[in-house]
Amino acid sequence: MKSLDEVDFTIIGLGLMGASLAAALRPHCRSIFGVDADPEAVSWARSQGWIDGGDVNLDKPALRSNVIILATPVRAILSLLDQITPHLAPGTLVTDLGSTKGEVCQKMGELPPSIQAIGGHPLCGRETPGGKNADPHLFTGRAFVLCPLPSTQAATLQFMQSMIQAIGAYPLIIDAQTHDRLVSITSHLPYLLACTLVNTAASQARLEPTLWRVAASGFRDTSRLAASEVTMMLDILLTNRENILAALQKFNHGLETLFRLIEEGQESALHDWLEEACEERRRRIL
Amino acid sequence: MKSLDEVDFTIIGLGLMGASLAAALRPHCRSIFGVDADPEAVSWARSQGWIDGGDVNLDKPALRSNVIILATPVRAILSLLDQITPHLAPGTLVTDLGSTKGEVCQKMGELPPSIQAIGGHPLCGRETPGGKNADPHLFTGRAFVLCPLPSTQAATLQFMQSMIQAIGAYPLIIDAQTHDRLVSITSHLPYLLACTLVNTAASQARLEPTLWRVAASGFRDTSRLAASEVTMMLDILLTNRENILAALQKFNHGLETLFRLIEEGQESALHDWLEEACEERRRRIL
Repeated sequence: MKSLDEVDFTIIGLGLMGASLAAALRPHCRSIFGVDADPEAVSWARSQGWIDGGDVNLDKPALRSNVIILATPVRAILSLLDQITPHLAPGTLVTDLGSTKGEVCQKMGELPPSIQAIGGHPLCGRETPGGKNADPHLFTGRAFVLCPLPSTQAATLQFMQSMIQAIGAYPLIIDAQTHDRLVSITSHLPYLLACTLVNTAASQARLEPTLWRVAASGFRDTSRLAASEVTMMLDILLTNRENILAALQKFNHGLETLFRLIEEGQESALHDWLEEACEERRRRIL
Repeated sequence: MKSLDEVDFTIIGLGLMGASLAAALRPHCRSIFGVDADPEAVSWARSQGWIDGGDVNLDKPALRSNVIILATPVRAILSLLDQITPHLAPGTLVTDLGSTKGEVCQKMGELPPSIQAIGGHPLCGRETPGGKNADPHLFTGRAFVLCPLPSTQAATLQFMQSMIQAIGAYPLIIDAQTHDRLVSITSHLPYLLACTLVNTAASQARLEPTLWRVAASGFRDTSRLAASEVTMMLDILLTNRENILAALQKFNHGLETLFRLIEEGQESALHDWLEEACEERRRRIL
């Protein structure tokens, strides 16, 4: 495997994640070619100097790079893998930035042996989508999950680790199943809670519009994720369904306990339950 | 009613809220006397120049002020009202910073007619408690709810509005019942969701400690309120029980809908449900 500064990249998808990666990576590699169905996304990334060339179509120049990074919502990654496979040169490395890894890594496992592949998921993001909100510092200090396949070579893993370090993140190696189970609790569940909170508040606000005037910083932070891009989140929910349903059930079990403690006025047990959450949250400074 | 710069205040409770109020108010009034059971809280506020004098006991100097502000958790406010009432001089104004208003305003309504009273609740806070974390800018740009009683005079309301403007906040006049119903959804429900989320994650992390390594900014923000001071929150839950149980039920109803949409893979309905939350959250920039 070549060193980072000798490598030509293609990034497919120049939204927030793809364009931020291009911006962070550009100073460290030989070239980046960008692909996005939206011509404005391509010309914006080019005007910023984040990509050397770009196209709205997936033609030859895009598929000639040494490394191809799929930076779209998960279900688009799955269909892109089908689309690009017949055109890849031997030795090409394919990776992605998708938020769920089970289905992506399964499909990557079906690539011909001449193609190297590894799943990727940078644990960062923002609820303001689009390449115009891209930020070369988006990855700074953040974990970047790598999910190696059985066929992933050590040199490939090492290359990805050097790329991750170059953009200021740190690598976290986890298998795809564990990743999907853990993020269903740490990421997908919080998103669903935020959405349900907003819809609950909105329903009450239709009767009492003053509600929005008393919503302060606690509501703001707890509901922030509800503003995430729906296309991306829908793909996540539908490609990690079993884990998410299990996470919702665990959460619901906790909520039922809490309801009962409040309803019965069990002050001492309620105190302990809240104190447990408080200590855990303070211990895990995030 | 005197103007703000002629008024002597007593603030009972020099935790985050009481000490921040002292810090913000001191440049605008004649004097502030601070009371806190913790001698360090009193000496800290004094060393910062936020109070002119202080005591760990509720003695005569504390009760001689023109305005007495109760800045403790809600149930302590209720017992303080019982405790101070017999010692108040006619014309004293009593107010508070408590997070629920129903029980506080009801008890204020039982004060003798010679005492003016009005409920207060600044809509700001931080999950780092204590006077050492106090900040004179805590109220800047925030709403400060006022709940007038039937016996509250216009001059009292006007005085409170001038105080609120002096500390950089803006007044929001709502009756106590409406306040408690609305904040059960915008503040108490988010707190309970944050706690349940943390306890759900902690339970999974006992089996898979890697969980905390994949918890990123989404988890951090959604769970932030779980670190709130438990003593304060317990008082809130127990003095706003009916509204909170109703809010939990409404939330749970939403969560059930969501569970079903995901379980049945109803993509189009799921999309609409998430899009509704997304648009609402983006519209209510907070």
